Order: sequence, then C-alpha cells, then structure tokens
Amino acid sequence: MALLEDLKWRYATKKMNGKIVQQEKLDYIVEAARLAPSSFGLQQYRIFIIKQGKKLEQINELVFKNFPFNQSQISTCSHLLVWAAFSKYTFDRIQTPLRQTSIERGQPENYSDEYIKRLYVHLESFDKNWQENHCAKQAYLSFGIALLAAAEQKVDATPMEGFDKTKMDEFLGISNQSELKSVLAMPIGYRDEDNDWLVNLKKWRVPKSEFVTEII
Amino acid sequence: MALLEDLKWRYATKKMNGKIVQQEKLDYIVEAARLAPSSFGLQQYRIFIIKQGKKLEQINELVFKNFPFNQSQISTCSHLLVWAAFSKYTFDRIQTPLRQTSIERGQPENYSDEYIKRLYVHLESFDKNWQENHCAKQAYLSFGIALLAAAEQKVDATPMEGFDKTKMDEFLGISNQSELKSVLAMPIGYRDEDNDWLVNLKKWRVPKSEFVTEII
Repeated sequence: MALLEDLKWRYATKKMNGKIVQQEKLDYIVEAARLAPSSFGLQQYRIFIIKQGKKLEQINELVFKNFPFNQSQISTCSHLLVWAAFSKYTFDRIQTPLRQTSIERGQPENYSDEYIKRLYVHLESFDKNWQENHCAKQAYLSFGIALLAAAEQKVDATPMEGFDKTKMDEFLGISNQSELKSVLAMPIGYRDEDNDWLVNLKKWRVPKSEFVTEII
Repeated sequence: MALLEDLKWRYATKKMNGKIVQQEKLDYIVEAARLAPSSFGLQQYRIFIIKQGKKLEQINELVFKNFPFNQSQISTCSHLLVWAAFSKYTFDRIQTPLRQTSIERGQPENYSDEYIKRLYVHLESFDKNWQENHCAKQAYLSFGIALLAAAEQKVDATPMEGFDKTKMDEFLGISNQSELKSVLAMPIGYRDEDNDWLVNLKKWRVPKSEFVTEII
C-alpha cells in the first residue's frame, strides 16, 4: 500500500521551511518525470529547475507575486520545477524521438519512417489550439508522476498552475527562440509544520460512489 | 527506488493475456486516481469501468476498431477504465466539493462561500475551450498517478487517447444528460509475454541533458 499511503501523506504545501532537498532526491523526481509515458512517446515537454536563491527571489517577484492566490510556498521552497510544453508538433520533433527509439531498439535508423510520416499527417491535421493543449496534457501526466515520486521520497511538492506564464517564459528565456511554453510549476521542499495553515486540515475527495461508475 | 523501478517495468502493453485483475487491485488503482490532486481540489473528472465480457466486446467494436492505430489490448484486457472530464465549470460543481471540504474539516458549511464566489468568477472568465481543456488536464494528472498505481501492483496498463470519443460518450450514456466527455482510456490486465511485439523492445526517453535545464 506504499503508493496510496504516499498519496495520503502529500498535500498542496503552502509554506515550506527552507530546507534544501538533496541532489539525489531532486534527480529522482526529475527522472520519474522523464520516464513518464506520453502520446506516441514524443515527450513534448521539458523541465526547468530554479534553486533557492537570487533567481528564485526574482521569479517570485516577477511571476508569482501578483497572482490572486496565496503563494508563500515559492519563497520558502528548496527548488522550483517548471514544466514547459511545446505549443505545436513539428516534423522534426516527431522524427527525432521515434528515430532515436529505433536506434535504441537496434532497428535501422529509418525503420519508422513510414510511421513517422503517417503520424505527422495525423497530428498536423489538428488545429494549433488542439496541438498546444495536447502537448500540455502530456506534461500534466508527467507532472502527476513527479508529484508521486516526491511524496515517495518524503519531499513536499505543490502543484501550481496559477502564475504569469508570459513572464515565466521571459524569465526562462523561451519567449522567442523556441516553441516551449510554461504550463505547470512545482515548488519542492519540506513542509513548515508549525506555520502552514493547511498542514493539519483534512483532505476531501469526491466519494467513490460518485467518482466511479461500473458499466454492467 | 520502488517508484522508478515500477516506471521502468511498465510499458504500453499492446497485447494482454485475458487474465482477470483481482477486485482488490482494481480498487487500489481507482483509489489512487481518486486521491490525485486537481486544480482547486475540484476533481472535474470521473471514471467508468467496463469489465471483460459482452459490453467490452461491444465497446471494442464501436469505439476502438476503426481507429487507425493497432488496439489489440482492448480485446485482451481484464478491465477498461475510462476517464471522462466535465466540459465546463459550473457554480454547483465548484461549490459542492469546496463545501464538502469545509464540512470534512469541521468548518461551518458556508466557511468558503466568499472563496467559492471568487473562484467561480475566476474560472468563468475563461472561454469554453479553455475550461474543457483545463478539466481534461486534471484528468491526465490523475491518469498518470493511476498508471503508476497499476505498475506498483504489477498490473499492466496502456495509456490510450486514440478512440472515437463521440461513440464512447454514447456508449457510456453521457452524451446528453451530463457535461462529461471521455478523454482517456486505460485497459488493464497482464502482458502476453509470448505475443506482445512491444514487450521486449527497449524504452527510449529524451536524454536528461536535453530534458532538464537548470537556471543558475
């Protein structure tokens, strides 16, 4: 029951205690995110890491502070992880991972070329908005897995969507030269047990009877 | 390293052996999905379960068969789990979970009423397409966690987006009376080690050096 226990242990930590997460644990969380599955194995997202310090203070000031909901986890966390997803599919970004997969599997490099073309036609047939959301959705899946990896390591992590994405992209240097756009942020660290208002409040979830329907 | 090992063990199973997943393990996977965090704790998604048998054969015929990519996992799985997300936010669907959370926490029922109103105004300010995608994204996060829960239980699971969603919604009976729309499917079961073409092929992922950027 390890995983369910980890899920019950975790919560959206609102205040951390400033303690630094060991490099080994940080690497573990990022590795879980990297190993997550994605649509056609294309992994159309990347992670940016900002450690506690000047840069993080700047990012807090620029990107989080003026958002309407309380964000004190940013000023108290150990590291901030940001998931950025590509805003559209390109032939290159389909070809590269699938060719690499073929090589990894000991197949000829062009083994998947017909499939790559077919997949490109398929993904290109959707509009820009769909493509952007589709890539972002894959990032959410990876993000969920990383949250759980943090919990397994007894590292607190807060899922966050509420920040100024335009300013975040500027800060990360992805506004102009790439098609990456920030979608999710995850401060990690350790809960401040004495001062986090949420730490002792119960978790509520939709009851199973309402959450699940069996089709018989 | 349990979680990373589980992630390496799992793969998008293409052919299962028909063996039934124990109820206890099925419940475990669904419970993990239910405990997943979601934006503002609103859990705007639900799960439908279809067990191996006539109904699943029908669904395979109607919903999966005509899709362009190979889907033999549906005809060989133990259960099919379908995540459906709400297509927009409503005042009721914001109020109900937040009021229930207050009750669970021993606060007065109307404790969060101001927050609920503010949140409704916030979420309502986005267009319909954004709302639909936003709810669906939360389902992806829950889905990622459920995939990992399956792997921990040594149950195989295949993440699937490629199916006829209109027909799926008809089959699930959610086309007319609700604002739920199917977004993801996960057949679960046990890999057919002798006949699944993918079982022994290596996993490839974007190398860490390309996947992660540290902002210093």
